[in-house]
Amino acid sequence: MKSPARFKDTEVFAYNVRDACVIHKLLIANRGEIAVRIIRACAEMGITSVAVYTDADRHGLHVKKADESYSLGPDSLAGYLNIHRLVNVARGAGCDAIHPGYGFLSENPQFAQNCARRGIRFIGPEAEIIRRMGDKIAAREAMIAAGVPVVPGSEGNLKDVDEAAVLAEKIGYPVMLKATNGGGGRGIRRCDDEAALRHNYERVRSEATKAFGSTEIFMEKAIVNPRHIEVQILADRHGNVIHLFERDCSIQRRHQKLVEIAPSPQLSEAQRREVGELAVRAARAVNYENAGTVEFLMDADGRFYFMEMNTRLQVEHPVTEMITGVDIVQEQIRVAAGLPLTYTQDQITRRGFAVEFRINAEDPKNDFLPSFGRITRYFAPGGPGVRTDGAIYTGYHIPPHYDSMCAKLVVWAMDWDSLIRRARRALGDMGVYGVKTTIPYHLEILNSEAFRQGSFDTGYVDAHPELTDYSVRRPTRELAAVIAAAITAHKGL
Amino acid sequence: MKSPARFKDTEVFAYNVRDACVIHKLLIANRGEIAVRIIRACAEMGITSVAVYTDADRHGLHVKKADESYSLGPDSLAGYLNIHRLVNVARGAGCDAIHPGYGFLSENPQFAQNCARRGIRFIGPEAEIIRRMGDKIAAREAMIAAGVPVVPGSEGNLKDVDEAAVLAEKIGYPVMLKATNGGGGRGIRRCDDEAALRHNYERVRSEATKAFGSTEIFMEKAIVNPRHIEVQILADRHGNVIHLFERDCSIQRRHQKLVEIAPSPQLSEAQRREVGELAVRAARAVNYENAGTVEFLMDADGRFYFMEMNTRLQVEHPVTEMITGVDIVQEQIRVAAGLPLTYTQDQITRRGFAVEFRINAEDPKNDFLPSFGRITRYFAPGGPGVRTDGAIYTGYHIPPHYDSMCAKLVVWAMDWDSLIRRARRALGDMGVYGVKTTIPYHLEILNSEAFRQGSFDTGYVDAHPELTDYSVRRPTRELAAVIAAAITAHKGL
Repeated sequence: MKSPARFKDTEVFAYNVRDACVIHKLLIANRGEIAVRIIRACAEMGITSVAVYTDADRHGLHVKKADESYSLGPDSLAGYLNIHRLVNVARGAGCDAIHPGYGFLSENPQFAQNCARRGIRFIGPEAEIIRRMGDKIAAREAMIAAGVPVVPGSEGNLKDVDEAAVLAEKIGYPVMLKATNGGGGRGIRRCDDEAALRHNYERVRSEATKAFGSTEIFMEKAIVNPRHIEVQILADRHGNVIHLFERDCSIQRRHQKLVEIAPSPQLSEAQRREVGELAVRAARAVNYENAGTVEFLMDADGRFYFMEMNTRLQVEHPVTEMITGVDIVQEQIRVAAGLPLTYTQDQITRRGFAVEFRINAEDPKNDFLPSFGRITRYFAPGGPGVRTDGAIYTGYHIPPHYDSMCAKLVVWAMDWDSLIRRARRALGDMGVYGVKTTIPYHLEILNSEAFRQGSFDTGYVDAHPELTDYSVRRPTRELAAVIAAAITAHKGL
Repeated sequence: MKSPARFKDTEVFAYNVRDACVIHKLLIANRGEIAVRIIRACAEMGITSVAVYTDADRHGLHVKKADESYSLGPDSLAGYLNIHRLVNVARGAGCDAIHPGYGFLSENPQFAQNCARRGIRFIGPEAEIIRRMGDKIAAREAMIAAGVPVVPGSEGNLKDVDEAAVLAEKIGYPVMLKATNGGGGRGIRRCDDEAALRHNYERVRSEATKAFGSTEIFMEKAIVNPRHIEVQILADRHGNVIHLFERDCSIQRRHQKLVEIAPSPQLSEAQRREVGELAVRAARAVNYENAGTVEFLMDADGRFYFMEMNTRLQVEHPVTEMITGVDIVQEQIRVAAGLPLTYTQDQITRRGFAVEFRINAEDPKNDFLPSFGRITRYFAPGGPGVRTDGAIYTGYHIPPHYDSMCAKLVVWAMDWDSLIRRARRALGDMGVYGVKTTIPYHLEILNSEAFRQGSFDTGYVDAHPELTDYSVRRPTRELAAVIAAAITAHKGL
């Protein structure tokens, strides 16, 4: 498992000198599949990778794959959020850069600032940009100034519930109440009338206080059954900004993406061009740098509204990599090292369709209850058009302290119909035993008429409760034989 | 492991009716990774897959992945070569087609003929084409007639040494003297000048008499250190013939390919066009149908010479799939069903580079001695640009009766330098424990200057004996922990 370092002593594969990459050793302030993904990028660039782990994660695949690893101690919850400790570990290990992955500290401006102050390159935009785009009101204002359409709503934060009621009357119900510093689908409520508005106002305030330490909330018109369309952006410090086409992330459950697609089967070429240009304009408006994602809502009439900008790598970046061939993580590291982007906009082409399935250790039949525990057997899928980004292996115990997503299955095919057929095959090819997963649920999505016709919005999961009406087959006789053989083999070790 | 059949009762994913594919159930007359590859294509096309297996292969992955499987009995050697039994099994199981894979009966005209006679579609060209291209003299004559360059040489057998000397002067030294009925590398001598020619002429005659009971010898120009360049062809019965660019298979050991690349880093765009057009001309000349490969030698001056045509799927077809996006196996099945090719030549584009490493259960340090036995742990590689076509799993016992190739690692990247870096990472990511493999040897190839500069010919392996001077690390402490965890988990089953 340590083999990427097997030839570490030879210099022949060091990152091309011509490229003059000044990053030699990089700490990954994250865990799970995204830490493994970043470690792979480091290995390909000749950069020494450094993993960190809490006690709960000491058997994590990222620990095994990295060139070096350091403990963050027993606090499984706070470990990956401890800015000072992470920066100290990075300094102590001689790292010249930190990649935050997604989640945890990836959109924390203090972390970016701390890194910069201690002479460590933060793989992401500067703290000021993170702060600005993290502030929904400021981001919205920047977009309005740049001519990027936004959802009609309050100008700034709401003063009180009465102001909210007046404004809602003006822009028309339904409206959304949102925590200004919110994210990850929390601190958001839809209000269909004034009674709901008054009821939800305090609840959002209370959620915002608990989750984000802020009472500020604002209002937006609710776009009914919108499509979630987001555009991948890459920008360097030499003024180059390009987009890598869009992703369709409309298949969500409680604002958590489940299935992501690139490009969207719901856009015309004209819409594709339009949303790509809007995203580049949005990024330019804030002098964006590094990888980022501009999220839009698309209404039933095909109009786009800026929703937010994520100033980090997204979970679903692999679908974009599959259709464009661009290694987004390597581009992030290049940009952070001060290098120009490898590609101009003209050099970005797309081929076929890609879909990502989040393989969560959850029981879809039981309200997606997390199903942590030991993976007794894991079979990775293979063959044409299949990519796996996972953090699991046979015998791995999924710790209960973190996100239930334990792997991502990414499938590519030349056209939409072939993609659905191949995705179905690949999901069947993948075997995760010992815990419940979202695999059978994804198979049901592929069987649904709406999905196959490429027509779905963010209400899809709620509108299809029958998706959980599957029956999972017991492991077959053959599988039992495989397991028996494996046990025999292991005993003989 | 049976999960591709999980939704067999629903009809929604049956192969698109518009395409009117008349193949519903297909027997795979093969084993190992290629049987799994074909089963995956069937699953994606809604075709029921039928595996066959000898006793030695009853735990084979192809048996587990197929929808149905039938025993060929205890004869591990003759099992996959028993034409009548295979056709009878196919008939009995209600199959309407047989895919022969590569090796075994894939280029046996009797098998193709038998299938046709019994009303089963053979996934490949007609028996007559297989027979014609299998006869080296007939194939050469067909190519000369079609204007495809062949290696210059005598037209038929030589009369005497004086005629040989005149001809050698004309075609240029070095030349090869070959016993017409020779084979297995005997009765072949290279002559660098007239003295050597006169010296060798009698020796070859004498060897030919002793070994083959014939004094007939002929002459060919010796292509010094050639590159092995082959072109993937697809042809349907509607007169459409297209090529999918070339593969460079110069990295061979004793005429066995080890590493295959697409496209060749050694060709200019003009050469790429030239060899592609030659291959299409060759296929048209024999009214070729289905997938095939036209193999050429390229000399140091960049001239191409027809070598032979393989009338079947190649081991290395995935590198072509990676750069073009075309699913070659699905195209084979479509063509055999009488459907036109999915693509015209104009629609075939290529992106980036791909390389395939044959993961053989062999010990490179011990003259590549086969290393059969039980795979104690298998870790599939993952992440961007990585595809695995394998027949192995943790606990699988590689039977000693068959080829030592147990998996193929295929890697794609946008450019040659990135490909080498990614390939090195992916080989490091892949873990096959319990048997010796060619993985560390492949890592050495990637470290060699000649390979990295994209400059190598068929003499590469012989010229680099130092490639076996690697040291394999023992499994690390972390790996031991993983294994321990797995054992615990399995005991608990």
